[in-house]
Amino acid sequence: MILINFFEPETSSWQPISLAQLPSVLSADARVWINLNDASIDEQQQVLQRFAIAPTLVEDFIRERHPPKLEAQDNFTLLVMRGYADIDFSEYISSAQVNLIYSKQVLVSRIDCHNPQLLAQLTPNIDSKHGAIISDWVKQIIITVSASYLEKLINFEDEQSELEDAMLHRGNDEQMALIMRYRSVLRKINRNLTYQKDIFADAIYEEQNPLLRNFTETELRDFYEKFERLHSMTDLYYDQLSDLVQGYLSTTSHQINERMKVLTMVSTIFIPLTFIVGIYGMNFINMPELQMNNGYFITLAAMAAGGVAGLIWFKIRGWW
Amino acid sequence: MILINFFEPETSSWQPISLAQLPSVLSADARVWINLNDASIDEQQQVLQRFAIAPTLVEDFIRERHPPKLEAQDNFTLLVMRGYADIDFSEYISSAQVNLIYSKQVLVSRIDCHNPQLLAQLTPNIDSKHGAIISDWVKQIIITVSASYLEKLINFEDEQSELEDAMLHRGNDEQMALIMRYRSVLRKINRNLTYQKDIFADAIYEEQNPLLRNFTETELRDFYEKFERLHSMTDLYYDQLSDLVQGYLSTTSHQINERMKVLTMVSTIFIPLTFIVGIYGMNFINMPELQMNNGYFITLAAMAAGGVAGLIWFKIRGWW
Amino acid sequence: MILINFFEPETSSWQPISLAQLPSVLSADARVWINLNDASIDEQQQVLQRFAIAPTLVEDFIRERHPPKLEAQDNFTLLVMRGYADIDFSEYISSAQVNLIYSKQVLVSRIDCHNPQLLAQLTPNIDSKHGAIISDWVKQIIITVSASYLEKLINFEDEQSELEDAMLHRGNDEQMALIMRYRSVLRKINRNLTYQKDIFADAIYEEQNPLLRNFTETELRDFYEKFERLHSMTDLYYDQLSDLVQGYLSTTSHQINERMKVLTMVSTIFIPLTFIVGIYGMNFINMPELQMNNGYFITLAAMAAGGVAGLIWFKIRGWW
Amino acid sequence: MILINFFEPETSSWQPISLAQLPSVLSADARVWINLNDASIDEQQQVLQRFAIAPTLVEDFIRERHPPKLEAQDNFTLLVMRGYADIDFSEYISSAQVNLIYSKQVLVSRIDCHNPQLLAQLTPNIDSKHGAIISDWVKQIIITVSASYLEKLINFEDEQSELEDAMLHRGNDEQMALIMRYRSVLRKINRNLTYQKDIFADAIYEEQNPLLRNFTETELRDFYEKFERLHSMTDLYYDQLSDLVQGYLSTTSHQINERMKVLTMVSTIFIPLTFIVGIYGMNFINMPELQMNNGYFITLAAMAAGGVAGLIWFKIRGWW
Amino acid sequence: MILINFFEPETSSWQPISLAQLPSVLSADARVWINLNDASIDEQQQVLQRFAIAPTLVEDFIRERHPPKLEAQDNFTLLVMRGYADIDFSEYISSAQVNLIYSKQVLVSRIDCHNPQLLAQLTPNIDSKHGAIISDWVKQIIITVSASYLEKLINFEDEQSELEDAMLHRGNDEQMALIMRYRSVLRKINRNLTYQKDIFADAIYEEQNPLLRNFTETELRDFYEKFERLHSMTDLYYDQLSDLVQGYLSTTSHQINERMKVLTMVSTIFIPLTFIVGIYGMNFINMPELQMNNGYFITLAAMAAGGVAGLIWFKIRGWW
Repeated sequence: MILINFFEPETSSWQPISLAQLPSVLSADARVWINLNDASIDEQQQVLQRFAIAPTLVEDFIRERHPPKLEAQDNFTLLVMRGYADIDFSEYISSAQVNLIYSKQVLVSRIDCHNPQLLAQLTPNIDSKHGAIISDWVKQIIITVSASYLEKLINFEDEQSELEDAMLHRGNDEQMALIMRYRSVLRKINRNLTYQKDIFADAIYEEQNPLLRNFTETELRDFYEKFERLHSMTDLYYDQLSDLVQGYLSTTSHQINERMKVLTMVSTIFIPLTFIVGIYGMNFINMPELQMNNGYFITLAAMAAGGVAGLIWFKIRGWW
Repeated sequence: MILINFFEPETSSWQPISLAQLPSVLSADARVWINLNDASIDEQQQVLQRFAIAPTLVEDFIRERHPPKLEAQDNFTLLVMRGYADIDFSEYISSAQVNLIYSKQVLVSRIDCHNPQLLAQLTPNIDSKHGAIISDWVKQIIITVSASYLEKLINFEDEQSELEDAMLHRGNDEQMALIMRYRSVLRKINRNLTYQKDIFADAIYEEQNPLLRNFTETELRDFYEKFERLHSMTDLYYDQLSDLVQGYLSTTSHQINERMKVLTMVSTIFIPLTFIVGIYGMNFINMPELQMNNGYFITLAAMAAGGVAGLIWFKIRGWW
Repeated sequence: MILINFFEPETSSWQPISLAQLPSVLSADARVWINLNDASIDEQQQVLQRFAIAPTLVEDFIRERHPPKLEAQDNFTLLVMRGYADIDFSEYISSAQVNLIYSKQVLVSRIDCHNPQLLAQLTPNIDSKHGAIISDWVKQIIITVSASYLEKLINFEDEQSELEDAMLHRGNDEQMALIMRYRSVLRKINRNLTYQKDIFADAIYEEQNPLLRNFTETELRDFYEKFERLHSMTDLYYDQLSDLVQGYLSTTSHQINERMKVLTMVSTIFIPLTFIVGIYGMNFINMPELQMNNGYFITLAAMAAGGVAGLIWFKIRGWW
Repeated sequence: MILINFFEPETSSWQPISLAQLPSVLSADARVWINLNDASIDEQQQVLQRFAIAPTLVEDFIRERHPPKLEAQDNFTLLVMRGYADIDFSEYISSAQVNLIYSKQVLVSRIDCHNPQLLAQLTPNIDSKHGAIISDWVKQIIITVSASYLEKLINFEDEQSELEDAMLHRGNDEQMALIMRYRSVLRKINRNLTYQKDIFADAIYEEQNPLLRNFTETELRDFYEKFERLHSMTDLYYDQLSDLVQGYLSTTSHQINERMKVLTMVSTIFIPLTFIVGIYGMNFINMPELQMNNGYFITLAAMAAGGVAGLIWFKIRGWW
Repeated sequence: MILINFFEPETSSWQPISLAQLPSVLSADARVWINLNDASIDEQQQVLQRFAIAPTLVEDFIRERHPPKLEAQDNFTLLVMRGYADIDFSEYISSAQVNLIYSKQVLVSRIDCHNPQLLAQLTPNIDSKHGAIISDWVKQIIITVSASYLEKLINFEDEQSELEDAMLHRGNDEQMALIMRYRSVLRKINRNLTYQKDIFADAIYEEQNPLLRNFTETELRDFYEKFERLHSMTDLYYDQLSDLVQGYLSTTSHQINERMKVLTMVSTIFIPLTFIVGIYGMNFINMPELQMNNGYFITLAAMAAGGVAGLIWFKIRGWW
């Protein structure tokens, strides 16, 4: 389904029209926003061919899951971004895929996002009586994409502090599994953010960058910084989770060691003693020690001596 | 065996000919594709000398397993690539070795691939009535090489998610061995992709790059991005597998700790008690306690007290 | 609450005034310091609009927790820094947030710091009879920020040496938890220092850097070096803590191994022997061995032989 | 011992001569190769002073174990390389040290290699009737050095595959020790290769590089690629061995866990039961239960119930 | 205490003089070396002010523990270096701090080194009848600093080989602690060497570097290479120690696994059997099995069958 919104400069109003109704030549004040969220691939190609958009842009635009990218041909710029559509980092369903092709007068968008709230924020606002400035829409979308990560990352900070406390005191397998999920999600996000950060980093350093057509250098630097901070935050959180896993491993290992110590000491002292008492529990007819009047007491004394010797040995070896 | 396909501009058709039949001077519209897949080293050298190709190119071309590389001398460009020929990443037999030497009119190819389907895709299509454009063939091969990785990487994503679930809940040695194989294969692929990515990265930044003779900058950037994404995906998957191994280690260690706790508590409480009951199971003739009327009950009470004391001690130490 | 200090060149004295009293045009010798530490967001915006400061600067200035950053528009420079406000690295409450906007005549500051001593050091000194040089104030603040880290890092060196000794000899869970907290704090600090280091690194290499308006290259290099050394120190300490964790893990593992060795040897030798003595403790009516006159001695000898055989087996296997 | 081979253009033949016999001025077609393999430090200095070679080159040349390096002064170039002299990577005795100083007419070499076969390959061939081109000799030596690594690295691939299989199924301490040796050797080699790779990388990018006097850029790129591939291979193998160690650790840990599970279940169920049977094996005169007619059967039933309860408890906790 | 050595060109001799005796203008051939090793901070400042040295240099010079650094102002250059003053890497007390300020005629030095032998080597030699060239002194000091690391690093190679053998065969806690100390020291050294390497790396690439006033590019490259090699060696040794720790952990883990296997098998087989023999050692009056004539033999046979079944079960599970 192709949804076209057309701003008629004559009537100064936005009209939903069909592709056929779109004038072949746009007057300078006209604006077009084409929403292809629910369009089939055929419909997408039809629209993009209508504006004679270069095939390399078209190909990347219509792909289901293209990583973030910027490319320009003639007057049109392709901008592919990815927002974070899920509630938090414990469950990663899929990213919000934001595919845009825009010129000064036309915006073609295809946004695939399972979170209706984020989808609404990513949708251009056409309630204005005046024709919109396309680059403002694009700017709004870029900022929304960056904000979709920021919210969750800020919430994550608290969550992680709690996790840190929990792991060091009463870590268990569910928490470990949660950490593993977090790490997996943060890695994926980090990759998306790397691409998005690089798009704007390139824009700052390249003289001919297509983003410079619509944005000032200050805006681009601002976009870059937003994504750079997000990237640095995901790095930080990922690394802190890694430290947590490593620290947990050490703590666990230490506890095993402590338990092992107790077990070994108890076993080493009592298992041989139990063997000795077992000996004198045997029912052989001829066991001279059993007939000795002091046998029992001698045996007890010998065992006590053995036990004490064991304790001394452990003490010397520094076990406690 | 040397297989030569020659496009005669006069008859506008492709003809299989022998090396001897090849005209010494090619007319501007003539095209030649020489398939050396099954040629011996002598035959390869014979063909390459026929076109007076520089020895450094020849040497790299005829090597059995040369890593990906680009080099040009005079009008000829050597392009060595490696595709992924196996079904998935659990078993790595060998890469698809793609050795090409081409000019505007001549393509010499040697493709060594144990997967017949991929081999077919890597073979130029000569069914056309018109003479082919050599660079289109090369482009097709580059795209096929990149696709040979992409398919398996996309499939791998699901496989890895399953593995992640499995490892955290019922990990076993076979899965661990599988992960190790995956990691080993991903490392090897990653190295191949690094070389291939760098070939096109260089092409974008170097002004005199031989690829610029046949391809536009947009095409090169597209090739670069394809391989860069593949590279970044293998990095991601490799790192996620590493995280999985580390997480598995922590989980395992935690479970050992839990078991150790149970074992130590049971042993520490019951082994000394068993020693005590063993004492009174001894058959010495003179054991005064045995003759006491309440001896049994006193002993039972003492042992119960000892057991409770042990439990309290563990409680205080925070074992449960 | 807006606190304005105004230096009147006529009276050569500092006066607390209200925003309304501030002259619309400042004479060349006049200086203004506006303290917004306790100002609401509305008040902050009111002040910043008064000086017609660019919205991008304003937005970053009024944000609660903005990472370190430098930006300039027109005559005004925004400098955001973060000092270390806590006593040491074992407990990280929050950084000292230092937000400055300054020109040659005006300094607007908002400093958020829970440590009153550091806050005092970060506050410009207006006791002078002469008008201050704004850049000297800024310099003083930069140096104070760097010193707020340095003190704690120098103290940390000793603390870490002790920790190192402790972990290798009598490591326990509390120390492990302390190390984990240290590592977490050092990571966060390191990130702040990276941003602050980069601010001054950029200033050295960029020709048009806004810091060059107020500082000489020697001063900038000095600032850069201060933060670079701090960054390098946090890196070093973080890495040494990581080594410590890893070494502790190895040591622990080794001790588990030693204990395991003792336990296994004792158990392997005595558990089977205990089984044997248990056999001859059974009360079956017909147990021929029990009736043998030498049964007891034969059994003892056999068990001694078994024990010695076990020891020899362990010796051969190299267990001790 | 100084071995001098002199090519007399008049007689077109190579002659062994003494240092004193060497003409003070060499005619354009004359060539000299001085072999200092067995020369003392004094002899080396004597020869190098004879050609007025700069002291900085001399100092590096005569050092026993100088890492790979390239330096030129006047007409002479110092090239220090290191080949791999041992059979494989399991035992690293020492590298083949290759010290060369050469100009267009003179080659001074000192090669220290405990492998006679490699030493022979590294020795220039003077059987020619024509005077040699010095740079061809140097080229031959560079290629031989690179080949000395390549052979062993190619063999190592198979060895490592086997090791991989072995470690995952029946890893033992000897294999672990072998892996540790391999890793140690690969690290050392990697460092040598880094230096050698950098020598040629510099040569490609520096305009005034001394290697450009004697070699074409194509040759230099070829040398660079050879060492770059070797470097990348050692990196790959090293990393794969690291993965192997990590995987082995995880596998081992998993097996410990499995064994721990069995041990804990058996102990937890049977140790308390053994305590109970021990109780009724005591010989107190007054133990009422023993006199009950059904005492034995009640006890057996209670113990069976206890055992089953234990199994159920383990089942609920998910131990099997 | 300020020690001043003054070379009088008139008498061509070195004279110890006081600060007051120092001529206010130095003749071209005069040289001054001021040793501030034992000077108080006041004395240091007094001397440095005498030569009108810039405050930024003074500040860094008088600091107790400044990391390696190079800075120049006017004719004076500040060079701070750190040598290795301890015997080996097992015990790190403190570095040798070398603070120099020099011009063509004046050298001010403050060297803080607890090793008297190294201190002597770092002290300029004034026994000459001719006035010294200051840059030769500085060069000598730089070389001595680099040599102070090199000696210990070369000795360390052997030490580490032994450690490697020891750890893999009979690793213990003391060796582990030694490795941890080595790693800690190597990290610290590595940081010092990074700074010192960078000083000379900058000198090679910067056109206006102050070191170029006194040293040729060849000398600077030589200094750079010395420190670069030291840096690369510490990296290598550090990494090899890390590998050793990791390998030790794997080996230990494997041994725990082996011991666990033995323990579990012995316990799993004998603990249930011991329970059974315990049953028939009970003294209930009514235990029918005990009255059976073949009870004992049936029980023995059943237990043997149980033991064999256990062994078979372990065999099937692949425990041996």
